[in-house]
Amino acid sequence: MAASSSITTAQSLVVRAISGHNSATLVHPDQISIPTGFGRNSLSGRGLRVSSRPLPAPSTPRLLNPPRAAAVETLEGKAGTTELVEKSINTIRFLAIDAVEKANSGHPGLPMGCAPMGHILYDEVMRYNPKNPYWFNRDRFVLSAGHGCMLQYALLHLAGYDSVQEEDLKQFRQWGSKTPGHPENFETPGVEVTTGPLGQGIANAVGLALAERHLAARFNKPDNEIVDHYTYVILGDGCQMEGISNEVCSLAGHWGLGKLIAFYDDNHISIDGDTEIAFTEDVNARFDALGWHTIWVKSGNTGYDDIRAAIKEAKAVKDKPTLIKVTTTIGYGSPNKANSYSAHGSALGAKEVDATRQNLGWPYEPFHVPEDVKSHWSRHVPEGASLEAEWNAKFSEYEKKYKEEAAELKAIISGELPAGWEKALPTYTPESNADATRNLSQQCLNALATVLPGFLGGSADLASSNMTLLKSFGDFQKATPEERNLRFGVREHGMGAICNGIALHSPGLIPYCATFFVFTDYMRAAIRISALSEAGVIYVMTHDSIGLGEDGPTHQPIEHLMSFRAMPNILMLRPADGNETAGAYKVAVLNKKRPSILALSRQKLLQLAGTSIEGVQKGGYVISDNSSDNKPDIILVGSGSELEIAVKAADELRKEGKAVRVVSLVSWELFDEQSDEYKESVFPAAVTARVSIEAGTTFGWEKFVGSKGKAIGINRFGASAPAGRIYKEFGLTPENVIAVAKSL
Amino acid sequence: MAASSSITTAQSLVVRAISGHNSATLVHPDQISIPTGFGRNSLSGRGLRVSSRPLPAPSTPRLLNPPRAAAVETLEGKAGTTELVEKSINTIRFLAIDAVEKANSGHPGLPMGCAPMGHILYDEVMRYNPKNPYWFNRDRFVLSAGHGCMLQYALLHLAGYDSVQEEDLKQFRQWGSKTPGHPENFETPGVEVTTGPLGQGIANAVGLALAERHLAARFNKPDNEIVDHYTYVILGDGCQMEGISNEVCSLAGHWGLGKLIAFYDDNHISIDGDTEIAFTEDVNARFDALGWHTIWVKSGNTGYDDIRAAIKEAKAVKDKPTLIKVTTTIGYGSPNKANSYSAHGSALGAKEVDATRQNLGWPYEPFHVPEDVKSHWSRHVPEGASLEAEWNAKFSEYEKKYKEEAAELKAIISGELPAGWEKALPTYTPESNADATRNLSQQCLNALATVLPGFLGGSADLASSNMTLLKSFGDFQKATPEERNLRFGVREHGMGAICNGIALHSPGLIPYCATFFVFTDYMRAAIRISALSEAGVIYVMTHDSIGLGEDGPTHQPIEHLMSFRAMPNILMLRPADGNETAGAYKVAVLNKKRPSILALSRQKLLQLAGTSIEGVQKGGYVISDNSSDNKPDIILVGSGSELEIAVKAADELRKEGKAVRVVSLVSWELFDEQSDEYKESVFPAAVTARVSIEAGTTFGWEKFVGSKGKAIGINRFGASAPAGRIYKEFGLTPENVIAVAKSL
Repeated sequence: MAASSSITTAQSLVVRAISGHNSATLVHPDQISIPTGFGRNSLSGRGLRVSSRPLPAPSTPRLLNPPRAAAVETLEGKAGTTELVEKSINTIRFLAIDAVEKANSGHPGLPMGCAPMGHILYDEVMRYNPKNPYWFNRDRFVLSAGHGCMLQYALLHLAGYDSVQEEDLKQFRQWGSKTPGHPENFETPGVEVTTGPLGQGIANAVGLALAERHLAARFNKPDNEIVDHYTYVILGDGCQMEGISNEVCSLAGHWGLGKLIAFYDDNHISIDGDTEIAFTEDVNARFDALGWHTIWVKSGNTGYDDIRAAIKEAKAVKDKPTLIKVTTTIGYGSPNKANSYSAHGSALGAKEVDATRQNLGWPYEPFHVPEDVKSHWSRHVPEGASLEAEWNAKFSEYEKKYKEEAAELKAIISGELPAGWEKALPTYTPESNADATRNLSQQCLNALATVLPGFLGGSADLASSNMTLLKSFGDFQKATPEERNLRFGVREHGMGAICNGIALHSPGLIPYCATFFVFTDYMRAAIRISALSEAGVIYVMTHDSIGLGEDGPTHQPIEHLMSFRAMPNILMLRPADGNETAGAYKVAVLNKKRPSILALSRQKLLQLAGTSIEGVQKGGYVISDNSSDNKPDIILVGSGSELEIAVKAADELRKEGKAVRVVSLVSWELFDEQSDEYKESVFPAAVTARVSIEAGTTFGWEKFVGSKGKAIGINRFGASAPAGRIYKEFGLTPENVIAVAKSL
Repeated sequence: MAASSSITTAQSLVVRAISGHNSATLVHPDQISIPTGFGRNSLSGRGLRVSSRPLPAPSTPRLLNPPRAAAVETLEGKAGTTELVEKSINTIRFLAIDAVEKANSGHPGLPMGCAPMGHILYDEVMRYNPKNPYWFNRDRFVLSAGHGCMLQYALLHLAGYDSVQEEDLKQFRQWGSKTPGHPENFETPGVEVTTGPLGQGIANAVGLALAERHLAARFNKPDNEIVDHYTYVILGDGCQMEGISNEVCSLAGHWGLGKLIAFYDDNHISIDGDTEIAFTEDVNARFDALGWHTIWVKSGNTGYDDIRAAIKEAKAVKDKPTLIKVTTTIGYGSPNKANSYSAHGSALGAKEVDATRQNLGWPYEPFHVPEDVKSHWSRHVPEGASLEAEWNAKFSEYEKKYKEEAAELKAIISGELPAGWEKALPTYTPESNADATRNLSQQCLNALATVLPGFLGGSADLASSNMTLLKSFGDFQKATPEERNLRFGVREHGMGAICNGIALHSPGLIPYCATFFVFTDYMRAAIRISALSEAGVIYVMTHDSIGLGEDGPTHQPIEHLMSFRAMPNILMLRPADGNETAGAYKVAVLNKKRPSILALSRQKLLQLAGTSIEGVQKGGYVISDNSSDNKPDIILVGSGSELEIAVKAADELRKEGKAVRVVSLVSWELFDEQSDEYKESVFPAAVTARVSIEAGTTFGWEKFVGSKGKAIGINRFGASAPAGRIYKEFGLTPENVIAVAKSL
């Protein structure tokens, strides 16, 4: 939907396409070859409601600025009179005030304080196409202080996005609306990522900027800079306090992401009152230390030119990201609540709204956008269409000259997987060497990197343990941004959230990231946002049990498998051997709107008979059975490294004449999605003698073993000792499985 | 055990007790009144194996330095010759090398590089009593870079701690040993906290330093500074990269914790290689920005005097914590592996061990401690006993003069709860006002703060939402450290780990901390360490479901209850009303070795008939029933805010003649611990018609509703809308419970 509406838009316009700096040629739209399959076709679905209503086409051809200079020129040329700017800023403030008031819920304070920078960004600086929120080369904007979402909704509304109409503003925070309580990319086209949990947004922004930097380095040519956009972010005191923001800003500085420009809304107020009570560090000095360029705009409420100058300065610094600390007043304009936490998180109240109208000289009804403001902003629809059309033309040129690169870039933009990609995945036989699934995972990662152009990722300083290095690529670094191995350092939380940004930059970017499985605890907030925001990140989580041995209980996951099985919209996969690891990757790549977590062993595992990629795709399946008529005496079910224990126990039991079925339960979520018939074929209701074995908590296994079966697992913390010893002490052995099976 | 051995020690020695600066009087041990019940009596148990073997008593009375000056004087006076220091440092290095080699597992690199600072700390600087690791006024040491634990084990061994004998070093990383793969306070007396997951240790250290600062401010008198110790910590590059360390160091700077001294082991190597690949920020400049005093010792391998001078300088700065960046070489002394990641995480190998012995001139057998080194370190046992005895004498003086304060401090040191404390908890009747459990929680918090001297805590910038302010106390701040409201800012992860440090400082300190329940995702790694390290932190988690309404899915927990029910050694409590909230707090306070999480509602809830504190203590109980003979037609089970929905549904069903039991399941863990008989009295096996209702995932409910019952819950992410609407849309209504019940 998004893609087709964008093409319609582009083709309906007559534009001048610019092939290089300072040169302009007139091109008829029919001459523009528009790549198909662009946009988010493959990702459309839940919540994606892009209107396809026809656009008013401008009546005459328009001369556009050359793209590289556009932003800066816009800054200088199209601002409008100060009076109009002020009026627009107040429009934003009152749309926020009115929506929060109507909902009697929300956060008016930030939009009132940040309206000036918001206005300047969306009206004067950013390049975007309101009628195609998924235009590839758009500037990205992230409101990391997501509670202030009415700022963004007001801006999207003024800019002409179909997703936020007046009616949507009036439905702020209501059931089914496109204007939920925090920005949600899956609900509101024009919102890039899902924010609200503090610090996530700035991390996503680092991911978006990284993606741009990487793609630009890979695809730009001296005569055609086809990838070229900025990433802007507004973050507040809360984001600054969160550890994740320091993690990712340290990385952004290290990587020198010059096209990342962050506005720090320095309003000195958080929910508990003045930030003096908990936050007295020198933020800009910290960012200097992190390798950023820093600026301080002291007059954020009214110093429009200072904000403009800061952005200009930030753009001039190409080798460092920039933090613009903008000192503002929360709830600016409210005579009694400005500069106080009472403006932060609740409606101002009718009386104070009136007083604020009085104070700012705002005579209009709620939700009113004055005509001159409307008219001023109306240029963004045609301008945005032109920007996209111009870029499309540029892409056509690119495609002619650089066929291969264009095809690759196209796949990244569209998310279309190359035909037959899955054939790259390795397969194994029971005769193949025993190996740790982390090693088998590395074979898959390297295989996929050769066939998927948007496949990239790395580890939180455990590449050599997680086995995640792509051997045919180098490190993504400041000097080598075209490479695909990301080095996150020991920053799990930031890593996950950066990957969310990468995944949501372009449908064909498939980021993976890795650490020890137990350290998902450090990044759980980011993983949850992967799941919520439909960012198909692949989490490569090795050392997935007590099998890691001597490092002991701080490093041994126990409750983690279950904790993710309980999380919505995520796939928790625990493959048992080579075929299942390949199957897990197949599933992970195919599930673009669901993140996947792969739990992988540190220790060697046998290649088992009966495992298969197809089996994994069903979540659970029978890998061996000597019963007939779907009536085994007993079902042994296991996952990952314990499946081979179940297999060994089954072998012994069968020798004693029992009819034993062994089920591999790789993914509970995928199994749940199978038909009742299929489920019955794996777990017949009549067979209640069931034993599960998994090196993790037994919590939750009741679902499969029922009240008459038994779950073998670990309901305590682990221990420091060689792995074999711990397995034995905890009863995770074929002998114990046999004993328990016999007791049923 | 710990306490009694310490008293024996103290009494066996003839000491000079010092009553003030620069004055010394001779005191016979019989004259020293030693408070009883000190130490960790109440916390002894799992893993706590303090030897009570008799001490060699020094033959003559010894003059001790006055305590305030001791550390500095020790620095200057007792170092021994440089040759001996070097020999001691090499002893530490080789104990680490040999233990890792024998285990063929572990991290030799850090101990080899940090041996100099480790030696200086434990031999020249720190005040501790090896025979009573729980002596209250000891200096605390935290190895935040926990993988280097052999450094600490070697130091504890040399210092004379009973927990780490030669045999224990030889059992490094083996099943049941006192020398596990990372430092674990519950296994090894002398280890203060549990580290390994990076960044946790520096956060714990901030908590330990906060506790000292707070207690010193509350209890010290101009003539008797009864609380007076330093907190030392060694952290590495990994810790520095983790966001949590920035969070807590920002707070430490804000609070001005002058007695916190952190050594940053700047060795430029992490697992993935040179830190240049991911960590190029200017760490000391960042700490300057965070309000720390910073020092750089460039010669960490050999510059012993530089290290000593840095510590002296750090102690002289009283209003800021100090970061001493110590540039070292990982694996120092190893000719082929030093300064490389290969020295980080695995045994050097026999050949390289030999080469290192050669290189450092170490002719000894594995695990050998040369006699002169042994003899040099042997003074720590008698000195430590003297330090404690001296402090005990000081406490006697204190007790005579400041009876009330002494009693309070004693309770904090011993962990003994005041008789009848639980009577302070409020009770309610069904006629009491409906209220949110977050508000009822505030009544409990305030009630407890008046009776529990060690009760303190706060929120991550949500005090006014979590309702966690203690009304009779002010804010703990740089100028008012005697107060008990902690202001953590938006730093959930740091908050949890700081509370772990507070809880493990003294058995009677009971820290609580608060945020929205969903943001446990940010602090899960710290919560897990609470559970593992037996730190009885109380987690006050409000806004515990979709009942928070408009903030939407980023703020609405779904899987969180289950994710904690699956975690070992933690209590997940979800009270339904006032009585249950009081019961949850009673349980939380009593469970000192298990953290508790209280999930509390934002929205008002009815006070229900049948709820009770006693019921909560059983985890699950019948709150109403019109059946007889333990044979209800149906069992409705709920928790927290949904219990009243079950009650309403039961009322209706009973009107229709059904025999309905309503069960409140406040804590699955506590219920699991009840007798089979009790469990059968609540959930009779014969009654399979069971319906659960909980505003969270249904994952895991199979355990109670069985294959024939039904679980009503939410198996998707939430939504932004008024709470009532979401409840209705998701079927969390009495009507739906009735319909489902009838369908069974």
